[in-house]
This record gives sequence, C-alpha cells and structure tokens, in this order.
Amino acid sequence: MAAQSKPDLVLASVRRLLRVGATANLLNLLQKRHPVDIAELLRALNDHERRAAVDALAGADPRLAMQVVAELGVDVGAAVLASRPASDIVRLLQELAPDDAAALIDHFPEALADQVRDLMHGQQPSAEITEVLENPEGTAGRIMNPRVFALPDETTVEEAVKAIQQLGGVEMSFYLYVIDERRHLVGVVSLRRLLLVPPQAMLKHIMTTDVISVGIDTPQEEVAKKVSSYHLLAVPVVDDENKLVGTVTVDDIIEVIRDTTTEEFQRLGGLEALDEPYVRTPLLTLVKKRARWLVVLFLGEMLTATAMGYFEREISRAVVLALFVPLIISSGGNSGSQAASLIIRALAVGEVTLHDWWRIMRREVLSGLALGCILGSVGFVRVSLWQQLFGTYGANWFLIALTVLFALVGVVMWGTIAGSMLPFVMKRLGADPATSSAPFVATLVDVTGLVIYFTVAATILRGTLL
Amino acid sequence: MAAQSKPDLVLASVRRLLRVGATANLLNLLQKRHPVDIAELLRALNDHERRAAVDALAGADPRLAMQVVAELGVDVGAAVLASRPASDIVRLLQELAPDDAAALIDHFPEALADQVRDLMHGQQPSAEITEVLENPEGTAGRIMNPRVFALPDETTVEEAVKAIQQLGGVEMSFYLYVIDERRHLVGVVSLRRLLLVPPQAMLKHIMTTDVISVGIDTPQEEVAKKVSSYHLLAVPVVDDENKLVGTVTVDDIIEVIRDTTTEEFQRLGGLEALDEPYVRTPLLTLVKKRARWLVVLFLGEMLTATAMGYFEREISRAVVLALFVPLIISSGGNSGSQAASLIIRALAVGEVTLHDWWRIMRREVLSGLALGCILGSVGFVRVSLWQQLFGTYGANWFLIALTVLFALVGVVMWGTIAGSMLPFVMKRLGADPATSSAPFVATLVDVTGLVIYFTVAATILRGTLL
Repeated sequence: MAAQSKPDLVLASVRRLLRVGATANLLNLLQKRHPVDIAELLRALNDHERRAAVDALAGADPRLAMQVVAELGVDVGAAVLASRPASDIVRLLQELAPDDAAALIDHFPEALADQVRDLMHGQQPSAEITEVLENPEGTAGRIMNPRVFALPDETTVEEAVKAIQQLGGVEMSFYLYVIDERRHLVGVVSLRRLLLVPPQAMLKHIMTTDVISVGIDTPQEEVAKKVSSYHLLAVPVVDDENKLVGTVTVDDIIEVIRDTTTEEFQRLGGLEALDEPYVRTPLLTLVKKRARWLVVLFLGEMLTATAMGYFEREISRAVVLALFVPLIISSGGNSGSQAASLIIRALAVGEVTLHDWWRIMRREVLSGLALGCILGSVGFVRVSLWQQLFGTYGANWFLIALTVLFALVGVVMWGTIAGSMLPFVMKRLGADPATSSAPFVATLVDVTGLVIYFTVAATILRGTLL
Repeated sequence: MAAQSKPDLVLASVRRLLRVGATANLLNLLQKRHPVDIAELLRALNDHERRAAVDALAGADPRLAMQVVAELGVDVGAAVLASRPASDIVRLLQELAPDDAAALIDHFPEALADQVRDLMHGQQPSAEITEVLENPEGTAGRIMNPRVFALPDETTVEEAVKAIQQLGGVEMSFYLYVIDERRHLVGVVSLRRLLLVPPQAMLKHIMTTDVISVGIDTPQEEVAKKVSSYHLLAVPVVDDENKLVGTVTVDDIIEVIRDTTTEEFQRLGGLEALDEPYVRTPLLTLVKKRARWLVVLFLGEMLTATAMGYFEREISRAVVLALFVPLIISSGGNSGSQAASLIIRALAVGEVTLHDWWRIMRREVLSGLALGCILGSVGFVRVSLWQQLFGTYGANWFLIALTVLFALVGVVMWGTIAGSMLPFVMKRLGADPATSSAPFVATLVDVTGLVIYFTVAATILRGTLL
C-alpha cells in the first residue's frame, strides 16, 4: 500500500509543476530518478502533460529524455515525439541505440517517417538506423544494435583496455568481440577475462574462438532460444560472410519472449495475433481480427445444425435426448481444450517434438479413457439421482443414464485425442500449432460429438424410446 | 536438414564409443563441445548410456560433467546423479552454483536428499546450498546464487581489480556490489566503469548508490518483472536488514518467465498447473490434475440440462429450436474465449490494470455488439438460404431466421462481456485471472446462452410455432 501511495504523491507534484510551468523544479524532481521510473510516472499523465514533460527533459538533458521515451514503449514514445519538427526528431534520435531509434521511426505516421528517413540519409550515426530498418521484421537484424564494439585480434590487452576507456558514452556490453582485418568475427573475450590476463597478451591468444553467433536473417524466436539455452548476455550478429554487423542483448530477448508468448496466447484463444498491445489496438482492427476466426468457427459449427437435422426424428420422439446435447458436446470440447493447451505448450518449449506423436497418442488415449469414465460416471449418477428424487426421466431412466454414460466416454476420449493430435498435424503442415486452439478443437468435437451421442442413443434406446 | 544430420552422426559416434567402452575417445569428442551441446546429445541417449557418459566425464573433468548435468534440467539431471553414492554426489555438487545444486537435491528421492543434506551439513560451500534450500519455493531466495562477490566501500579501484583477478574459478558477474562494514548493500559498480576510473579512486566515490535490489522473499515473478523492466543483467538479493545475501541473474529470470508462461497456458486450457514438464508428469498425476477441473466444469455444465428441461415443452412443439442449440451456445463460448484470452494476457503483462475495467467494459460491449451482428447476419443468411434451396424450415422460416439472428447478437455480446470481465473479477478476488479460462467462460455462457436463446424464441415465435 505504501508503495502505491508514494508514486501517487510524486505524480501529483509532477502534475502541479507542469501546470504552473515550474520547469526547473520539475527537472530537479525527475532527473534524480531512473528512466524506467520516470516513464512509469509519465504513463499516468495525459498526452498533453506527457509531451510537456518530455519537452522539459529534452531541453535540459536530451539523453535522459530519449531514455525515457524508449522506456515508454514504441507506441507512446512515437506519439510523444511525433508533434516535433522532423529535424528536431532526427537530432534526438541520435541519443538512442540505432535499434531503438529504428523501432520508433517504424511507429511514426507514414509522412513523418519518410521525412525523418530523408533527413537522416547519409549522416553517419543515422545511417546505422536506416541499416537496421532495412532488415525484415522478426529477424535478428531488426532488433540488433549495429553500434558494436570490436577490436582486431592483434590488439594487446593493454590497448584493448585503453580503447574501452576511450569509448565514453558509447554503449559497451560485457563481451569484447574480436575481428580479423576484414571484420570477420573470430573470437570473444569477456570483460572479466580482460582483467585477469597479462597486459601484453594479444587478444587472439586469450580469446574464445568458439563464438556462438546468429545470422542477420535468423528469426527472433531462434535468437531467443539460443541466448537462453547458452545463458548468453548478448549474442553477436554476423552477415552471410561471417562479418560482425551487430549484437542482440538479453533484454531485447526478454521482449521477444514476451511478444511471442502474447501471440501464442491470442492464437490459443482463437483469434489472430494483434501485433499491438490490446489497449492500443483500434476497435475496428480488434473486431476484424476477432471476427475472421469467429466466422470460420461459426461456419464449422453450422454443421452441428445439419448433424442434428439428421436426428430430428429421434429428437421429436425423445425430447429428453436434446436436453443432454450441450452437456455432452461441451465435455468433449473441454477435454479437447485441455489436451490441446498441454501439447501446444509442450511443442512451443521444445519439450515434445514431431517424432513424439505416437508416444503422446498412446498416453492421451489412456488419459481420455480415464477422464471419460470419470465424467461418464458422474453423468450416470446425475440421471439416476434426478430420477429417484424427481422422477424426471420416466420408466426408461436406466437406459437414458447408460446412454449418457457411454456417450460421455466416447466423446471425452475423442475430444482428448483430437485435442492432442491436432497440434501435431498443424506443425507437420508447417503451421503454428497454436492455430489448433481450444475453440477449433471444440468446434471439431461438437459436430462429431453429436454423431457419437446420437449413435450411442440409437443403439441403446432402439425399441424403447426410439 | 544438414543441421539435423550432423548431430545425428555425432550421436551415433557417442553411442558406439560408449558400447565399446572407448572412454578416452569419448572424452575427446565431448570435451571440445559446449556443455549445452553435450547435454543436447545426452538427452537423446537412454538412461543407461546417459549415466555412463556422465560417469566418464565426471572422472576426467568433474566441473564439465556437472555443467552438463545442470543443462540436462533438474529432472533428468537428478536422475543421472541419483545412482551414485551420496558422498560422491556431495563432492560433485560443489562444482555447481549453490542455487543449481539446491534445485537438483530438491529432485532426488526423499531418502537420498536427506542423506545428501546430512553429509553437507556444516561444510562451508555446502552450507550455502542448504541455505538456499531453506528459502520457500517461488521466492528470490530459492533461485539466487548466495556466492556473491562484494567489496567494502573503502576499497580502491586498484584493490578491487586485484581482488577480481584473484577470484579464479568463482563465478563473478558483470556488477561489483559494494557493502559497508556490516555487509549492508550500499552501491554497485559495473566492471566497465572499473576500467574507466583512476586506480586510486575509492569504490564509495564511483559507485551508483541507487541500487535496484529485491528481498529474499520477493516472489519470482516480481523479480522477473524488475529485471526485465530495468534491463538488468543481475539483481542483488538482500535480507530484511538490507544485507547482501545473493544475486539472481538474467538467465534464471528467463527460466522463471518460461515456467510462469507454461503455468498460465495450462490454466488457460482449464487444468491445474502441472509443475513438471508434460512428458515427465506421471499419467496418474496428469489425469488427476485434468479431472478435477473437468468435473467442476461438468457439474456447472449440468445446469444446461436443467435449463433445457424448462424449455422441454417448447422443444417438443418446435424441434427445429433444438437444432440450433449447439451453434448458438458455442458462438457465445468462442467469443467469450477470445475476450478472456485477450484480457488475461493484458493483465499478465501489466498492460491493463484493475482500474481499467470500466474502460475495457465499454470497449468490449461495442466489440461484442459488432461481432454479434456479424455472426447474427451469417446465421440469418444460412437459414434463409437453406429455406430457398431445400425448404427446410417451412412457412415460419423468416421468424426462425429472426430468432437465430437476435439470439446470436445477445449470446455473443453476453459471451464477450462475461469473458472480458471474469478475469477482472478473479484478480479482484486475489485469484489468478487465468483461472477464468476459456472453458470456464464457455460453461458460464452455455447455461445463460440457452436462456437467452429460448427467451428470444418465445418472444418471436409466440402464436406461430409456440
């Protein structure tokens, strides 16, 4: 609670200082905070106030201002900058790492983005930004920082330390990359190792030559997998001739993991990935991305009306059959959703591969059978109990209870198998397994579940109710 | 494909060398690889081969052997070690960071774990392991490395560099933590900064005093949030007196993020979090964790039979009403699943907070209305079309089409609102929003959807079909 109230007080001060135009006091209050915390404060302001606060910061400390803008995220960050003249934007963007600057430009309105790009053309640090923008989205090249610090392999440790000391403001990570005379990546030295070796040693003698790197076109998800499985803090990016062109750091990777997860969640919920945060997605886009799959599912689900049409005669003779339709098909859908979620996730983290389908199949057949028997028994008890208590189902109650029991065993087993195998089929076809999400499994199982249910009913009730 | 076949060749060699007992050749082949890659190879072996390979490594290079064991993951890693004598295990565990060792001990059979703990008791490096094990699961203390390198604030840079150089094998991260005489955490210096300042400067004059730290009891998810939002490579862990007790590094954080995501996925699919990888979960546990929620959902879904019972008279008069039941309730379920997945994820990444519920509500009412109108129109067209083509629905087809249209608008809107608001209700009650997963929303919407459908039908069809 205390943690909640303190930022609220600071927020109130920021608002007041903005209102009275007390820029010096405002700067005094903001500058002693971490950019992340300033961004947190700014996020709670309205657009007008936020722009005024960034203006104040940009006048006094452009670097801090841009760190804050970067922390605001690309959507809000781009919106805050967009009202400034393009030349001013170009100047401010120099304060950022080229990958962060590129991401912001990507989120400007088209006309402004073009203007900014034109102004940047040819200028040295800006050229790096344009370079990053030329790489396709979703690749290592698009999230790398091209401003990478590297030294030739004949440099001595003493010279390397001096070079690092002269870096000044330039961002330098925890690894020193070693290149040959044609900028090929040949090794890596950790900063700590640099402290541990004699100053006269040459980098080529102390470096690790077995460098783990990624290509400029490597998909971001693969970069994430590499960084996390080898426990790296940064990974060098090379072009197809093994020339060093940039680095991707572990904090970019955490972003990638988060975004990928969000997309998987959305697919699992049966809609297209939004690409943008939910709250920033325009309502029309939101409806469009949801409507497309909903309509597809709806068209599939129409088959239930057709399927039930075939059993219209049975239903009119025994209306009691209709009463259990939702219960039975949803049990199939729920067990299918469970199985699908389990397998989709296991495939996503690489715990299970395509080769395992047969092993999983056997496991899921058994699970489905067990779950079907459990639900079937509960269903049997329900019908029997209602009969004893209220006499709901008449003379044939036992046959109805049996129908519910066997239909549930069949439907739950089938739902479990379909839910667990569909992700494999998707992956085999080269699609994202998450596309075989819960709603898809439910729709598939609804139609077939009806057929299972009425077939069981026809078999058991023939000659009595039917 | 080439990437696939090369490890296969290596794997075949490993198998062959193990079979003929050519330990020297095996070591030669393994030792030049990264522990991650060795673990990858070992994962493809059977239990017996894997143990033999680790035996060979442990004899020649215990550190490498244990790095490989750590990479195998706690389940497989613990299984590989468990056949050794306890004293041998204790010796080997010293090669690991205490947090990794503690995680392995946690996964030994109970008796062995006790034996190992007893043997470790009192020994210095082992004491650190027991210390980690004393912290509750899910806290920073349980994933921290207690072997943290820190220096007093009166140390000079020159002395600090010397101290780092003498560290030898001990793991040292990218930050040098600074403590006062009573081990309170007072500052931090990056390795790079150490290279940039005059050797005579004292740490207390060059350190950053505004250190971001976490408490020993801080939940792992919060540690993850802090590390990722401040872009840290490691975060110091302090006790309640602000004394430095360990560090958590960013690679541990990636593990936490991955595990949390897996749990959220499983909850979203309507089952209890497995705690273990799917393939390692015993079948009985799997069935138990799935059955519990499935039965709860089934009991809820039983209300559909009750609800439909109320409309038994209507159904027996107009069987055509029953035909659309699955279509209409599943549309509500699907639109609800979409909304729930979106909001659960937005809450999880902190994009949306409890305060936003009213804003989201308004947005989702509009989305639901739009989606309902789209599906309703498709449904209307379907009924009309079938009527023109096959004359399926007789004289009252237009009223039936209208019933389907309005029922869909109502059900989809209601599904969307329920799906988007339930996560807020869960969070407000202090539960995980993911518990209001797709299957729960579907079950809730199924029952109410039936009531909406039959009420609409009763209103429109009164006097004609009913």
